[in-house]
Amino acid sequence: MTSSRYMKMRSRKAGLPPGSLVHLGEQRPGGTEIELIQYGAEEFREERRTAIDTCLLAAGRPPVTWVNVEGLGQLEVLEKLGGCFKIHPLVLEDIVSTDQRPKVDDYGDYLYLTLKMLTLEAEGASIRSEQVSIILGNDFVLSFQEGLAGDVFDQLRERLRKGSGRGRALGADYLAYALLDAIVDHYFVILENLAAQVERLEDELVVGPTDRTLRDIYHLKREVLFLLKSIWPLREVVGGLERRGTQFFQQTTALYLRDLHDHTLQVVDTLEVLRESLVGMLDIYLSSMSNRLNGVMKVLTIIATIFMPLTFIAGVYGMNFKLMPELEWPWGYPAVLGIMAAVAGGMVVFFARKRWL
Amino acid sequence: MTSSRYMKMRSRKAGLPPGSLVHLGEQRPGGTEIELIQYGAEEFREERRTAIDTCLLAAGRPPVTWVNVEGLGQLEVLEKLGGCFKIHPLVLEDIVSTDQRPKVDDYGDYLYLTLKMLTLEAEGASIRSEQVSIILGNDFVLSFQEGLAGDVFDQLRERLRKGSGRGRALGADYLAYALLDAIVDHYFVILENLAAQVERLEDELVVGPTDRTLRDIYHLKREVLFLLKSIWPLREVVGGLERRGTQFFQQTTALYLRDLHDHTLQVVDTLEVLRESLVGMLDIYLSSMSNRLNGVMKVLTIIATIFMPLTFIAGVYGMNFKLMPELEWPWGYPAVLGIMAAVAGGMVVFFARKRWL
Amino acid sequence: MTSSRYMKMRSRKAGLPPGSLVHLGEQRPGGTEIELIQYGAEEFREERRTAIDTCLLAAGRPPVTWVNVEGLGQLEVLEKLGGCFKIHPLVLEDIVSTDQRPKVDDYGDYLYLTLKMLTLEAEGASIRSEQVSIILGNDFVLSFQEGLAGDVFDQLRERLRKGSGRGRALGADYLAYALLDAIVDHYFVILENLAAQVERLEDELVVGPTDRTLRDIYHLKREVLFLLKSIWPLREVVGGLERRGTQFFQQTTALYLRDLHDHTLQVVDTLEVLRESLVGMLDIYLSSMSNRLNGVMKVLTIIATIFMPLTFIAGVYGMNFKLMPELEWPWGYPAVLGIMAAVAGGMVVFFARKRWL
Amino acid sequence: MTSSRYMKMRSRKAGLPPGSLVHLGEQRPGGTEIELIQYGAEEFREERRTAIDTCLLAAGRPPVTWVNVEGLGQLEVLEKLGGCFKIHPLVLEDIVSTDQRPKVDDYGDYLYLTLKMLTLEAEGASIRSEQVSIILGNDFVLSFQEGLAGDVFDQLRERLRKGSGRGRALGADYLAYALLDAIVDHYFVILENLAAQVERLEDELVVGPTDRTLRDIYHLKREVLFLLKSIWPLREVVGGLERRGTQFFQQTTALYLRDLHDHTLQVVDTLEVLRESLVGMLDIYLSSMSNRLNGVMKVLTIIATIFMPLTFIAGVYGMNFKLMPELEWPWGYPAVLGIMAAVAGGMVVFFARKRWL
Amino acid sequence: MTSSRYMKMRSRKAGLPPGSLVHLGEQRPGGTEIELIQYGAEEFREERRTAIDTCLLAAGRPPVTWVNVEGLGQLEVLEKLGGCFKIHPLVLEDIVSTDQRPKVDDYGDYLYLTLKMLTLEAEGASIRSEQVSIILGNDFVLSFQEGLAGDVFDQLRERLRKGSGRGRALGADYLAYALLDAIVDHYFVILENLAAQVERLEDELVVGPTDRTLRDIYHLKREVLFLLKSIWPLREVVGGLERRGTQFFQQTTALYLRDLHDHTLQVVDTLEVLRESLVGMLDIYLSSMSNRLNGVMKVLTIIATIFMPLTFIAGVYGMNFKLMPELEWPWGYPAVLGIMAAVAGGMVVFFARKRWL
Repeated sequence: MTSSRYMKMRSRKAGLPPGSLVHLGEQRPGGTEIELIQYGAEEFREERRTAIDTCLLAAGRPPVTWVNVEGLGQLEVLEKLGGCFKIHPLVLEDIVSTDQRPKVDDYGDYLYLTLKMLTLEAEGASIRSEQVSIILGNDFVLSFQEGLAGDVFDQLRERLRKGSGRGRALGADYLAYALLDAIVDHYFVILENLAAQVERLEDELVVGPTDRTLRDIYHLKREVLFLLKSIWPLREVVGGLERRGTQFFQQTTALYLRDLHDHTLQVVDTLEVLRESLVGMLDIYLSSMSNRLNGVMKVLTIIATIFMPLTFIAGVYGMNFKLMPELEWPWGYPAVLGIMAAVAGGMVVFFARKRWL
Repeated sequence: MTSSRYMKMRSRKAGLPPGSLVHLGEQRPGGTEIELIQYGAEEFREERRTAIDTCLLAAGRPPVTWVNVEGLGQLEVLEKLGGCFKIHPLVLEDIVSTDQRPKVDDYGDYLYLTLKMLTLEAEGASIRSEQVSIILGNDFVLSFQEGLAGDVFDQLRERLRKGSGRGRALGADYLAYALLDAIVDHYFVILENLAAQVERLEDELVVGPTDRTLRDIYHLKREVLFLLKSIWPLREVVGGLERRGTQFFQQTTALYLRDLHDHTLQVVDTLEVLRESLVGMLDIYLSSMSNRLNGVMKVLTIIATIFMPLTFIAGVYGMNFKLMPELEWPWGYPAVLGIMAAVAGGMVVFFARKRWL
Repeated sequence: MTSSRYMKMRSRKAGLPPGSLVHLGEQRPGGTEIELIQYGAEEFREERRTAIDTCLLAAGRPPVTWVNVEGLGQLEVLEKLGGCFKIHPLVLEDIVSTDQRPKVDDYGDYLYLTLKMLTLEAEGASIRSEQVSIILGNDFVLSFQEGLAGDVFDQLRERLRKGSGRGRALGADYLAYALLDAIVDHYFVILENLAAQVERLEDELVVGPTDRTLRDIYHLKREVLFLLKSIWPLREVVGGLERRGTQFFQQTTALYLRDLHDHTLQVVDTLEVLRESLVGMLDIYLSSMSNRLNGVMKVLTIIATIFMPLTFIAGVYGMNFKLMPELEWPWGYPAVLGIMAAVAGGMVVFFARKRWL
Repeated sequence: MTSSRYMKMRSRKAGLPPGSLVHLGEQRPGGTEIELIQYGAEEFREERRTAIDTCLLAAGRPPVTWVNVEGLGQLEVLEKLGGCFKIHPLVLEDIVSTDQRPKVDDYGDYLYLTLKMLTLEAEGASIRSEQVSIILGNDFVLSFQEGLAGDVFDQLRERLRKGSGRGRALGADYLAYALLDAIVDHYFVILENLAAQVERLEDELVVGPTDRTLRDIYHLKREVLFLLKSIWPLREVVGGLERRGTQFFQQTTALYLRDLHDHTLQVVDTLEVLRESLVGMLDIYLSSMSNRLNGVMKVLTIIATIFMPLTFIAGVYGMNFKLMPELEWPWGYPAVLGIMAAVAGGMVVFFARKRWL
Repeated sequence: MTSSRYMKMRSRKAGLPPGSLVHLGEQRPGGTEIELIQYGAEEFREERRTAIDTCLLAAGRPPVTWVNVEGLGQLEVLEKLGGCFKIHPLVLEDIVSTDQRPKVDDYGDYLYLTLKMLTLEAEGASIRSEQVSIILGNDFVLSFQEGLAGDVFDQLRERLRKGSGRGRALGADYLAYALLDAIVDHYFVILENLAAQVERLEDELVVGPTDRTLRDIYHLKREVLFLLKSIWPLREVVGGLERRGTQFFQQTTALYLRDLHDHTLQVVDTLEVLRESLVGMLDIYLSSMSNRLNGVMKVLTIIATIFMPLTFIAGVYGMNFKLMPELEWPWGYPAVLGIMAAVAGGMVVFFARKRWL
């Protein structure tokens, strides 16, 4: 068993001592890459590397250092980086175990945050979930991504480069907030995609649902459920930052965290409405199936109820008895046809009364 | 994708820095309009503008200033107003992002409140939800509406003009309360409309449900769910005002807030009862479909069970064997007719015993 | 729209200033009547009026004054009474808005309590819910009823008149408790009526459910749901009295409040069990419908499966081909009858094996 | 109405003043009996009476007195006992109102506890629920049972008589714990009985469910629901004893209470699993009904689809037209038989492809 | 009754005094075995025994002693061990009562912890649940297993032997954590097995569900429910250790406990997603059954609706009336065949329009 719709294969870690680095999930094709951005109100430096030779933090460094790591497969790079910034082994373990629930841990010298970054696959049909870990120190931010697809930070990088927005003048805490904000803002893109799919299914239900509709509802519901489970704890994470993060977050940033908190609540609310709608759609599907069956059975019943008596009458006068006086009567045939018409008419009236026609 | 039944298109904001003003939702046809009302126990001034040249707050102004903004499309007007009253950029962002959950934020110098104003569309068939934001300072109230349809403040304006009620003698906090009260009071009008629809569907279920009934139940349930989600947080907002709003609300107004809190609880209770009723109706629909199918199948079974044996008997005597002694008997035909009548009668007795007739 | 199964028509109040007296609900036929009872351990006075000329509280009055108002239609009487006892306008508004949730508000000089009084309609088939408001001051109790049917206080009045029980020696707080207790005790009468209906439906389900059973289940479930919603908050009201009501309730009465609290918990528990039973009954109904359909279809299938092959065989020998050697055989007819019997017998064995017979 | 599956007839108490003794439920056939057990580490006395002449507590009495009352019908005996031990009238009322929720009340001089004792009826088919009340004073324990069937204290009595276990050396608090423990331990016997019934129904579902299975599921679910409602509050009662009962329970007994608390949690957990299993079984039942209907309909459809075309062909050549050339052909009859065989074979192939065979 | 799918047979304990040792569950075939491991940073000793002659704790012992007991059947061994380490009788009772909920109790000198160890049966088809109890003292850890299958501590033992990892240098608290971690890590192996089964069922649902699929869904749901119930309380246990265990856990180990807490949350989350998926699958199963029934009925209805009118027409011209002019017409036979073709064609068009073909 190498992969599952429901979970990452954590069994590879069973029995290992805590703090063991085992990377769960796919490898990034290009290996691990490091992006180093350092800036202050007046300065900006940017660099990409694939290895760490010296520790990145030099003296006289600018006010904010952002180290963004893409691809978690090369564990020795992570360990080296961890050494430079004095990161606890358990944090490194969590970074590479890419099935963490969103959480925030306070390690005294830095905050460790992890959450899911959601992106749409190229064709827009399915949702890709990647784990992003953020470490916030006094003057640095480390971010770790699985790096399988692009990330959602491009516009943020652009703003930092140009010095537009208020970004560059503020400290590392604002950068950490901006990363979180970019990820959560992107959730809305995913939500819109889901909402569009739900609406398409609703329309299908009205026009004429098929077996496929049913399966789509099931799969969409599972997807919504998954998102809910992986975003739900984020509410508390952000709420916790707002309440307890006073050591790392300045007063001015706290207001932005409150805003972020509102956004996560909105995401969860919308997901819950989508879920309830999908549950309701299953009921509608069942009801309309049952409705249709009724329609089919009515057609059958009407046909059978009209033609069975007629066929019986015809059968009677097809019998070969010697002595059947009706057969000799000159108006016997038209009379029987008349009776048949009367029987058929009576049935039609009966069904019209029952409103089956 | 330009619009959705489930959410506003917030994706347009993804990647923008926090505090960016992007108006979500429809534009008000007439652009942004500003209504300025200033009053005290003895004075009252009223004015409408479409732009702001000078800041509205002059020295020697009356005790209470109410600036009501309709239409959120002209961002520069909002920015100018924000500058006059020293409103935080995040507040302005929330005002134009018209998909906020109800919330209250304390910004020290003022309280920021947002909630949904519900109105019935002209024909009364569907519910229009607009975001209303209220900013309460020491001697001013700012209110922001999307302004797509009329608002629910007409009677309040009238009372202020005439100086009737206790309105004009009290401060800005009472005005803010009165705005909230007008909005929540109007929820009951919406609830009555929903309750009437639920009752109509209940009656339809009894008389004879159709495919359309099913879809109406589904849509109504979705609407109730939406309202619940967008009113639910209001309970905590008003509860929070009651507990924490001591800085902005005077002792006398606090009693009114308690009253308002009761009303939101009532709204939520009623919506929950409506929702549970709608869920129950789906079960009833399924059950009555199944019931009807039983009825149809009984008719079919009775007809088939009576006529199949008869047709078989007729078929036997329609065979062309040379040697069938019964055919020669003079009383053969009436005897067979008699047997047929007996078989049919037996079946009828059988079904009567099974209570199918 | 003048009335609704789901809510009182509160829309008449939309737009009015807070504190406006608008009576929601039906008028009492006899108008507003006031019952004045004053007593102490040794004295008892009782009087009925329809208007208030002088304030009812004279000097040298007895220890406890109970003013019971029936019929809330004559607002001027209520206003006058409110003036005498210095009742806040919002309290008067709540008293006449007869769709309040149960609640308790502390107004410093008095406690304001509201809850639902349930009575059975004359024929015992449906439940009438009336709002009762109770104001408890230091030496007086005001109670307000809609007064559409009788109340549940007769036995309490009798005890006060006779001076039996411990009632007359204790203060106003005990009177308020006794009113609450009488109302909650009467809930059990309602519950027994509901339980009896649930049991009747259970028995019907076993004997043979009809379309009517289904609708009864639905209506009963709605009724139980309503009661649950209108009694649920009472738990907290009474629990709150117990915890916070120390100013108005003496130590000895507190024990009685704990007892009352237990009773409301019992009522809610029983309602929840009834609700779950009703939900389960719907499933049983659906299952037994499906079961019955199976029975019907088996009869149809057995008949069709036996007679279709037989009719086909008869049809074959009813063909008019010149050259059909079997028709000439002397034992052709009995042989065919034998084959038919064998086919029918084989089918019966087949169905017996499938346990359909 | 004299009895109900859902509640005791508390309506008899409506309108009575609080503290009125009204016994709800069945009378014990043998009337009220009192069992008096007094013991210390070295002494043991045991006695049975049917009346109380003098108060039972004499001077120089042994360390622990246990008065066990069976049968709550003779109210005067209870009142006398209440007088001897200075029990509050509300406690006596609760003791005879045998529909209490489990609860614990602290009356200063003693603790009042009530819960349900469950026993199996003789034939083991249904569960009998009796109310047990326990009053714990400093050196006495009073226990009150309805006494309709035997109790679950026999082994405890035996241990006290023999002085085995640690029972006799410890105080009244340990005795009260031991009574609770005996009752809760007996719940497991009931649970095993329920679990066995659930397993029997599961097996029936696999072998072949009948109408009776359905009703058994419903009744068992109701029973489990009842137990859940009447045991659920016990968790908090025992948890409350553990936390607050320091005045009455010594340090050593507190550990035992924690153990008791674990047991009640286990009981509730098991009941919840049973309930969810029963809910799941209903779904399985519905599904397997629907499955079976499919089977029935397939048989019908196969038969009809094979024989209807055949019968039609036979009917065509049974027509009496003068000019039907096929009838004259010498190989007409075998040719038609061949066509019929081909049609039937084709249908069989069609159904085999659809996997209906 | 000797065993149950739903519970251990605790009834054997009913009536026994608290602290009685009764072993619930199966006996370990090899009897009770004791494994004694003592170690410090520089030393390591390992031994297996089947009895305890002297108390295991000698003076001058190494920093950490781990006594691992497999098989709980020989109560005298447990009692002796309990005596050596001064374990409370209630703890011993809980150790052998192998149906405990996960819990942690603080006994002052030591912590008592119990939880479930899950392993897969040899063939991997079903899950075996064993109770593990852990007692953590200042310098010792006692662990008790039922010992029916192997345990999950082999890799931990190996690490201790080799002195690899950080294990040997740290104290008893770290050992207790490592045992918990090994058990919880193994849960993920079980989860992967469950997830694989759920996915297999999902695929079966798409390809073509059978009666067996239905039963597998039911059984899997029950298994997931069981696990949920037996792992759910573990969250609070570990959370409680984290918060309150400061006496026994050093600062450095506390970080590891937080990690463990995250893992238990993940396990519970995954189980909940699996459960919801299984519930959804039942709905899909029902819907697809209903869908298939529709398909079957359509085939039947199409066949019946085409052939019934045709057979009737044939029947009419099979009647033996003397005077049926059509029979004499030379083109009568082809004309009737033509009419039949037209009727059949009309029906096909009708069904094509209804999209049944």
